[in-house]
Amino acid sequence: MIHEYIQSNQDRFLKELFELLRIPSVSADSRHASDVRRAAEYVVEKLKAAGAEKVELMETKGHPIVYGEKMVDPKQPTVLVYGHYDVQPPDPLELWNSPPFEPTVRDGKIFARGACDDKGQVYMHIKAFEIMMKHNLLSCNIKFMIEGEEEVGSDNLGTFVKENKAKLKADVILISDTSLISLDQPSITVGLRGLSYMEVEVTGPNRDLHSGVYGGAVANPVNILSKMIASMHDEDGHITIPGFYSKVAELSAAERKAMNDAPFDLNEYKRELGIDEIKGEKGYTTLERTGIRPTLDVNGIWGGYTGEGAKTVLPSKAHAKISMRLVPDQEPQEITDLFTKYFISIAPKSVKVKVIAHHGGEPAVTPTDSKAYHAASKAFEEVWGKSPIPTRDGGSIPIVALFKKELGLDTVLMGFGLDTDALHSPNEHYGIRNFLIGIETIVAFYKYYGGAES
Amino acid sequence: MIHEYIQSNQDRFLKELFELLRIPSVSADSRHASDVRRAAEYVVEKLKAAGAEKVELMETKGHPIVYGEKMVDPKQPTVLVYGHYDVQPPDPLELWNSPPFEPTVRDGKIFARGACDDKGQVYMHIKAFEIMMKHNLLSCNIKFMIEGEEEVGSDNLGTFVKENKAKLKADVILISDTSLISLDQPSITVGLRGLSYMEVEVTGPNRDLHSGVYGGAVANPVNILSKMIASMHDEDGHITIPGFYSKVAELSAAERKAMNDAPFDLNEYKRELGIDEIKGEKGYTTLERTGIRPTLDVNGIWGGYTGEGAKTVLPSKAHAKISMRLVPDQEPQEITDLFTKYFISIAPKSVKVKVIAHHGGEPAVTPTDSKAYHAASKAFEEVWGKSPIPTRDGGSIPIVALFKKELGLDTVLMGFGLDTDALHSPNEHYGIRNFLIGIETIVAFYKYYGGAES
Repeated sequence: MIHEYIQSNQDRFLKELFELLRIPSVSADSRHASDVRRAAEYVVEKLKAAGAEKVELMETKGHPIVYGEKMVDPKQPTVLVYGHYDVQPPDPLELWNSPPFEPTVRDGKIFARGACDDKGQVYMHIKAFEIMMKHNLLSCNIKFMIEGEEEVGSDNLGTFVKENKAKLKADVILISDTSLISLDQPSITVGLRGLSYMEVEVTGPNRDLHSGVYGGAVANPVNILSKMIASMHDEDGHITIPGFYSKVAELSAAERKAMNDAPFDLNEYKRELGIDEIKGEKGYTTLERTGIRPTLDVNGIWGGYTGEGAKTVLPSKAHAKISMRLVPDQEPQEITDLFTKYFISIAPKSVKVKVIAHHGGEPAVTPTDSKAYHAASKAFEEVWGKSPIPTRDGGSIPIVALFKKELGLDTVLMGFGLDTDALHSPNEHYGIRNFLIGIETIVAFYKYYGGAES
Repeated sequence: MIHEYIQSNQDRFLKELFELLRIPSVSADSRHASDVRRAAEYVVEKLKAAGAEKVELMETKGHPIVYGEKMVDPKQPTVLVYGHYDVQPPDPLELWNSPPFEPTVRDGKIFARGACDDKGQVYMHIKAFEIMMKHNLLSCNIKFMIEGEEEVGSDNLGTFVKENKAKLKADVILISDTSLISLDQPSITVGLRGLSYMEVEVTGPNRDLHSGVYGGAVANPVNILSKMIASMHDEDGHITIPGFYSKVAELSAAERKAMNDAPFDLNEYKRELGIDEIKGEKGYTTLERTGIRPTLDVNGIWGGYTGEGAKTVLPSKAHAKISMRLVPDQEPQEITDLFTKYFISIAPKSVKVKVIAHHGGEPAVTPTDSKAYHAASKAFEEVWGKSPIPTRDGGSIPIVALFKKELGLDTVLMGFGLDTDALHSPNEHYGIRNFLIGIETIVAFYKYYGGAES
């Protein structure tokens, strides 16, 4: 019945999602502020249409948060669905094969910024809700909280949650913003890395200089910054910031073995990425490097002349965006402080440095022995015919730790993306099959979660 | 008489120069090709007006070369004046206090791209020529060769010179494209560094990746490039490319002493640049580091996300422009090859690298015992009341070596800029006093050079 309804309505579902994807709700870019609001209003409209009550666009100091609910029975448990309607910037635009805000279907995939992260996955929940309302299947209460600042660090979500504890009262958080191992092997994310995102500026001379006249005698901030970045990893790929690893939780041999039992084909991984060799911290496998170990990556670097041809300039300034993925029990604020202190300490006197922190997020581990986890597991078994494998993901959803702290709630991360969906990259996409099977799996989750209580 | 003529005509001289400065003849940017031609045509017009003969715009495969001459007596020696009418790109535009192509006078200085390098200095020669023609003072022959590709490596000048040896026959080359120690202490450049300018590209994964999903397991090309750049200097500031120093001519203790006798105030140097400490190769003074030692500087670097806010991307590519200043007897082609080989050798297998060479130029030393050098020296003594000090400059004018090789001619580098003129930088400027006294000094040069023969 559910399956047939999804099949007969899939064109409409996709048409509605495409309308949302056409709104360039880039939260990082202030020029898109009105687009971000437009996306929020669209979510409001669709939640109402699906049957949600008390739907409203709640203001924050930044972009608004969409709230809606359907209380079927106060004695039943309540699921709080979290997601985000904002998206990453689409740059570099020239690498997209179709416009980022004009969803295009190729090979059964929807290509658009936000197709998977997270508009496509949020929209699955709205359609699953529509189905349950239409078929009178909703056996527990449901609340929606869809924000617009996830891609810029959820700056105002903490305050919002603190100020609305009664409204957000629930029994579990449900989020679809993670990936599956593959369409053949479902999985549920049970660990997420935290994040500390920094921006640095290194200043040498007070103006761009002629590299011939001054080169060799005056510190070049790009050369200096390169050296500073290089010194942040040792030869074994360990991060050299003093104290960086002091709170990293080490897994037991059994836990590491279980983790490495997940299906993983290194040759296929390298082939798909177009690389001849992987590179990471000595002593850990690829799954461990992305799952249980902290990292430090330069996300962007710029300085000096970057145009056509040659310009013999000794630049005044060099910049980089550098972020660290954190694991339990690292604290983002502490790591931010350690980074800042270290970066300043390794700067030679011939330059001046500035360090600013963009945003952080705490690492999180979610339980695998809860009623909600079991319901998610059974939902996958029913719809996919296979038990999901618990995995640890490299990405960060800082709000998981926030919800635990402020609302006392655990989260179930029932994501339907794939690591190959090019999140945050040109040509982001989301499989139509992932979208449709996701809706069906979500409906099954509510059956097991609510049904077990009734 | 000369002095008075310059004073009474200075407004017109400046007005004419400003017209030339208004033409954005950026040779590196193909969108400015017609502006580059317009600047050449303006030089043609002004040479004709000053009394030059056989003036023509000679085509090359790139931007045209302006030629003109005045043969007063075949028995007299001939001076070949070289200069360039093209300019560096004006970026970064936002750092200019007045538009780069709208010359603006502040504090007695002309602010404009090309004000000093090299339009202002070229125009001094045209006006000195006008004066000598008006007053019937030209006692030797004069030829002009003003090119439009100096800022992009003079790619077509070599062929032009080879194909026009008879036309360019002369006894000495005279160039104003260098700097004085100060307005209180004239100097003549007798050594110039060569140049090897490279661009590198480091590719990791075949697309930008989510740094959370892949970070720690896949090589980040920005981190790798930073490390590769860092490894190009050792702790003492020596360049680590094998063979890099093998042909560097070492100066005698006496030569080094003479060089360091030039007036130089380190505190003033640091203050003017806004730096707390200088940085360079161990064992050499600042004047030696910029004069007689080769260098390696990153002129530009870019990769990943460089926009507003935070984007958690593991970039696919990182790029840098890296140039080396060379000294006698380093060969640009050999250094380009050594760099390429080394850069490829230090790349880990987890990335792919591309290296391209932009352009090179040979280092040069000019004689101080020639008739032309003595004439220049006497001209300074007469006009400035002080003997010029011979200096070695850090910049590169590759055509000095070219002229020696192809035409067998030595060069006199009688430049009137200052190191603080912000060449290749925002707010490039040229002192009006430098411009006017330069004209007078050039006229005096011809008096001593031609007069000595007559």
